Amino acid sequence: MTTHVRVLTPVTSTQIRSDADIEALQGPDLIVSHDLNDIGPPSIESRFDEAFAIPGLLTKGMAAEREGVDAIVIDCMADPGLNALREAVNIPVLGPLETCVHLAAMMGTQFSIITVLESVRPMFEDLVRSYGVADRLASIRVITVPVLELFGDEERVQALLIREAKLAVEEDGASVLILGCTGFYGCADAMSAALEAGGNQIPVLDPIPVTVQFAAAMARAGVSHSKRTYARPSPKEMPGFNLPKD
Amino acid sequence: MTTHVRVLTPVTSTQIRSDADIEALQGPDLIVSHDLNDIGPPSIESRFDEAFAIPGLLTKGMAAEREGVDAIVIDCMADPGLNALREAVNIPVLGPLETCVHLAAMMGTQFSIITVLESVRPMFEDLVRSYGVADRLASIRVITVPVLELFGDEERVQALLIREAKLAVEEDGASVLILGCTGFYGCADAMSAALEAGGNQIPVLDPIPVTVQFAAAMARAGVSHSKRTYARPSPKEMPGFNLPKD
Amino acid sequence: MTTHVRVLTPVTSTQIRSDADIEALQGPDLIVSHDLNDIGPPSIESRFDEAFAIPGLLTKGMAAEREGVDAIVIDCMADPGLNALREAVNIPVLGPLETCVHLAAMMGTQFSIITVLESVRPMFEDLVRSYGVADRLASIRVITVPVLELFGDEERVQALLIREAKLAVEEDGASVLILGCTGFYGCADAMSAALEAGGNQIPVLDPIPVTVQFAAAMARAGVSHSKRTYARPSPKEMPGFNLPKD
Amino acid sequence: MTTHVRVLTPVTSTQIRSDADIEALQGPDLIVSHDLNDIGPPSIESRFDEAFAIPGLLTKGMAAEREGVDAIVIDCMADPGLNALREAVNIPVLGPLETCVHLAAMMGTQFSIITVLESVRPMFEDLVRSYGVADRLASIRVITVPVLELFGDEERVQALLIREAKLAVEEDGASVLILGCTGFYGCADAMSAALEAGGNQIPVLDPIPVTVQFAAAMARAGVSHSKRTYARPSPKEMPGFNLPKD
Amino acid sequence: MTTHVRVLTPVTSTQIRSDADIEALQGPDLIVSHDLNDIGPPSIESRFDEAFAIPGLLTKGMAAEREGVDAIVIDCMADPGLNALREAVNIPVLGPLETCVHLAAMMGTQFSIITVLESVRPMFEDLVRSYGVADRLASIRVITVPVLELFGDEERVQALLIREAKLAVEEDGASVLILGCTGFYGCADAMSAALEAGGNQIPVLDPIPVTVQFAAAMARAGVSHSKRTYARPSPKEMPGFNLPKD
Amino acid sequence: MTTHVRVLTPVTSTQIRSDADIEALQGPDLIVSHDLNDIGPPSIESRFDEAFAIPGLLTKGMAAEREGVDAIVIDCMADPGLNALREAVNIPVLGPLETCVHLAAMMGTQFSIITVLESVRPMFEDLVRSYGVADRLASIRVITVPVLELFGDEERVQALLIREAKLAVEEDGASVLILGCTGFYGCADAMSAALEAGGNQIPVLDPIPVTVQFAAAMARAGVSHSKRTYARPSPKEMPGFNLPKD
Repeated sequence: MTTHVRVLTPVTSTQIRSDADIEALQGPDLIVSHDLNDIGPPSIESRFDEAFAIPGLLTKGMAAEREGVDAIVIDCMADPGLNALREAVNIPVLGPLETCVHLAAMMGTQFSIITVLESVRPMFEDLVRSYGVADRLASIRVITVPVLELFGDEERVQALLIREAKLAVEEDGASVLILGCTGFYGCADAMSAALEAGGNQIPVLDPIPVTVQFAAAMARAGVSHSKRTYARPSPKEMPGFNLPKD
Repeated sequence: MTTHVRVLTPVTSTQIRSDADIEALQGPDLIVSHDLNDIGPPSIESRFDEAFAIPGLLTKGMAAEREGVDAIVIDCMADPGLNALREAVNIPVLGPLETCVHLAAMMGTQFSIITVLESVRPMFEDLVRSYGVADRLASIRVITVPVLELFGDEERVQALLIREAKLAVEEDGASVLILGCTGFYGCADAMSAALEAGGNQIPVLDPIPVTVQFAAAMARAGVSHSKRTYARPSPKEMPGFNLPKD
Repeated sequence: MTTHVRVLTPVTSTQIRSDADIEALQGPDLIVSHDLNDIGPPSIESRFDEAFAIPGLLTKGMAAEREGVDAIVIDCMADPGLNALREAVNIPVLGPLETCVHLAAMMGTQFSIITVLESVRPMFEDLVRSYGVADRLASIRVITVPVLELFGDEERVQALLIREAKLAVEEDGASVLILGCTGFYGCADAMSAALEAGGNQIPVLDPIPVTVQFAAAMARAGVSHSKRTYARPSPKEMPGFNLPKD
Repeated sequence: MTTHVRVLTPVTSTQIRSDADIEALQGPDLIVSHDLNDIGPPSIESRFDEAFAIPGLLTKGMAAEREGVDAIVIDCMADPGLNALREAVNIPVLGPLETCVHLAAMMGTQFSIITVLESVRPMFEDLVRSYGVADRLASIRVITVPVLELFGDEERVQALLIREAKLAVEEDGASVLILGCTGFYGCADAMSAALEAGGNQIPVLDPIPVTVQFAAAMARAGVSHSKRTYARPSPKEMPGFNLPKD
Repeated sequence: MTTHVRVLTPVTSTQIRSDADIEALQGPDLIVSHDLNDIGPPSIESRFDEAFAIPGLLTKGMAAEREGVDAIVIDCMADPGLNALREAVNIPVLGPLETCVHLAAMMGTQFSIITVLESVRPMFEDLVRSYGVADRLASIRVITVPVLELFGDEERVQALLIREAKLAVEEDGASVLILGCTGFYGCADAMSAALEAGGNQIPVLDPIPVTVQFAAAMARAGVSHSKRTYARPSPKEMPGFNLPKD
Repeated sequence: MTTHVRVLTPVTSTQIRSDADIEALQGPDLIVSHDLNDIGPPSIESRFDEAFAIPGLLTKGMAAEREGVDAIVIDCMADPGLNALREAVNIPVLGPLETCVHLAAMMGTQFSIITVLESVRPMFEDLVRSYGVADRLASIRVITVPVLELFGDEERVQALLIREAKLAVEEDGASVLILGCTGFYGCADAMSAALEAGGNQIPVLDPIPVTVQFAAAMARAGVSHSKRTYARPSPKEMPGFNLPKD
């Protein structure tokens, strides 16, 4: 039986996720499809941006369940709308940050997150605390490049990621690294290699490939989030929004 | 110098907050004004509802700052949009849950929250944990009445609140109580009196009056949230939303 | 590319894991094989039993890596030898307790573990604390049946599990349940169904099927534990034990 | 209705709190009065000093309630006698450290405390832990000036505070600062300005002005500490002390 | 070499500690001596009482060091003046609560404290949290007898202690018990025996005998508290108190 | 009455513990005896080594109880087999790490552990967390000398320990130090002296002398671990091991 995972990119910019990215995630028994937000910000770099991204994402997520997909992966490391979407659907919904921090907590003592901008640090600190793994966080490091500037100078981004990875390992004591923006897709291998060249065998988690595999694992194991924690919301009028009728 | 606090009700139902409620909050040196959401759900009883309430609230909050108010109180115990609005403005923004749980932690060993519906329990558990005071939470108790049914049978609501208050004190060990819905405005005194009649001198926090006083205190002390934690978001196009231009 | 997961049962009794159990775990792209301990106790019901199970398990785990398997699942909810085996090999090693408690922490607010005997409660309490998720543990409940008596009267075991599951949900507030002994394999569905009949939509994690899926996911995503946390041990003479030479 | 807050300085030195300090705290609706300890140490720089300051403070605090004041602020960042005085009276009693750390926890991710001497660091660490906000403490920094030497060379003190403030922000990651001695009264604005000149918009809490505002807010909101946590002590003979009779 | 431990009773009532109590603590190599407070309350049942007990205790503790004793045990489960006395002297100072909760944390998963009155519960909760072992506290139970009424009807006190001990074990899950008042001296054995008769092999810590042994162990091992944490206070005038001159 | 403490060295190398070491621990009322592992690794530098050391240690520990010793001290800072041996016997069993970290938590705010190799850091981090005192750990520092190379160049080891001790105090903020390998026996005094020469009065815990004193204190106070937490294991066949029959 084939498993179908939908990757939902919660922004309106088409730059962030290519067809090639998605195709690379497919497997013999695994279909991976993709959808993009129609309303909201082009990129998420603050909780303000996030607030405007969530309504559109929820609509897309509910549509995915109706289409029959088996699990949903939110394509943003701020895990926008994770709890709200779990209320709205029964199929597993995975946030890449939540998935990676729990996996990292199993893989080593301390993890570091390497992300785009200083302004998202407090958002990550809050999320890591609310996921209950704050005592495993070695550090959050930033490369100081806005999301939409990641594309076009991949070489520079890769070099900056390697520099921060080395500092996270050597100065902050990280034993596992997490890429802190889904726009860094594909950069993990070069980082691992660079660390290994320096004598450190440190896993680097590339959130979307990892989270897609775990979404498929949940679907295949037949488990999803608890409806006691994520009760289905009562239907309500929502003036100003076009919500699909059940 | 007069202090001006704006109470922002993040829902579209006009039932929840009356002019009389707001007038009662005024003081000789304190102006309290009120505004209501134009878009989003009529009441907030899930994280799904909350997601559709926040965009409108942010627009209203930014407008309040431009009008010159000194501080903003979000009129919902889920503290919707608290972090995002702090990014968008410089004046103090207070959530009644965050304010009350920190105040309760100063007033006694353990507090209980009494709220409307079982479905909001996980939302409160998450928030209390993320505010860092989870070890002070004695219990969350519910009266099992939806928000929009609170109005019309106030006597029954008051009786249910008193019943749960007694249980929170006698069975859960609460030394402070917090009303867990801003729709319970005005119910605290009868609860305190009933508890005192039973031999327990237990403070009951009525979130909106308490939070308006603390908002005024912050404004008068000249302090506001840190712009290091709540950096101002870069301006972006937000297709699907009408955001005011700065 | 096919993924090969080895299930290692760390006890010497052949009763606990059947060929049928293992076959049911296979998938189109997933080979699951099985091995059993040669030395040590017939069942693990104490830390004392565990101590005698680990040396044999380590030998079997090192052999599995040399055979070319892609990941190892330890078939016991005490996760015996988890850290030591991760030191000895490079492929992912998963303990079912560690995997399930992190997954449960993502699926709901609070989880309960239902296990065999009162005597293993402190072992689970220690492990849950050391995995960093103690604040998510609603309760540990026991059916008071020793491991080797699970087999033969499956109906009674199933009934006892359903009784404790209902109590965990109704009295302890669990939103997710974890089967606390790998000898309960196959009992989850009837528990879920019984809970649903009582109006509670609560996921029940069957540890071996879940952990095998997550082991395959780690192998497919190309990630394993950190060698900074789990450094390879220096080779030493071990009088009294027959360790394979590298 | 006017609110009356009593500031109680728990030491016998008259140098620490001037009439001008107190007058500056008054407001149209706010009377602030002041009292000083008759017995005990001239300054508090250790838990030993504190122990001799508390008996006199308690006598003064009980007298304040009998005089009809609405709330009491203890004028020392060690919050001496906070719990004992709350037992002895019904009106709100606020410690500036407890108030500021909870407020700081609401205003930003991490706060630093800048205080007088290395010897008080463990006292602050204990208090911050016992207030439940230890995970928000970025650092404690000291200027290495004893309390009674603060007065006379204010310029040097101000310069030292600015130096440590910059280090707390740049090296320790603080997003909010707290003045760690009530003898630093009035120094916050210059620190904020210096930080802003360096590009950091970081609030600095001046404990006495902030705590007086919050004491007035509690009195106006009609709330005080729980008598379940702070039960009134049974009257006892206290040989060696002159306690007022009720 | 003989070790000399001083037991300091921090109250002015002579009822609480008899010569026979002290003699029973002696050993072939262990001298135990005793002293009593001259000023302060006859018993400690609140933080208010405690505040008036500490100044006299500090004077007595400093005198003990000058006399040449090797270690000091504070004879009250509120550990009054523990930190302040450690500042004032170099020899080990032990509080029975701190000692017993750390020992209990080593002896079993969860401990309960059985004490005199409901009014001291918050004091114990604060202390256990500040000692860092709050997650090991199963419960605090009270027999509702004031300290000075313990003496005269020992049989009734013993029966009440046994009743609460059974409840702590059977309902609260305690695996270790701590007597929560040093006035319960001598009651542990009958409690252990009663629990064992009911099938529970649960250790009961009698704080003074246990703490005297640990004080002697520290003295014999040649270790004492850190002067970095407990710096010696600068000498100061203390109007109202007669402090010995060094 | 004389107390008899058995020191059990859990490795097969005879280098680590000399007769002179043991004799120095004796006292007028204290017999200290010694035993060594017959099977397992010559030294413990990983969890892999530890796994092969525990079965032999358990056999030796059970034999000690049958011989009539009063308490057992495990002679390795990894506390190997601590929980399993407590299940197997009724007399007190002490691990030097558990004992020292709890004692250090009573002696000062923050402690550092100085140990042999980087590879044991995660083992210590796990243990300190599982003992519940992780928030008191200032740092773990290593001298990068394998256990069996400690003997022969004691002067170099002593110098390296002093260097790391100074760094732990000056850079990491430690107020108490713990020797992190029982092979460092006898090195504490020179470290204390060197720190004092630098102006820091910091206690250094030498684990075996300290733990032997505390084992004797537990035996003399008549207390041992809880059989609720450490239930006696059911007797089982253990193919591959020669366990004594009861």
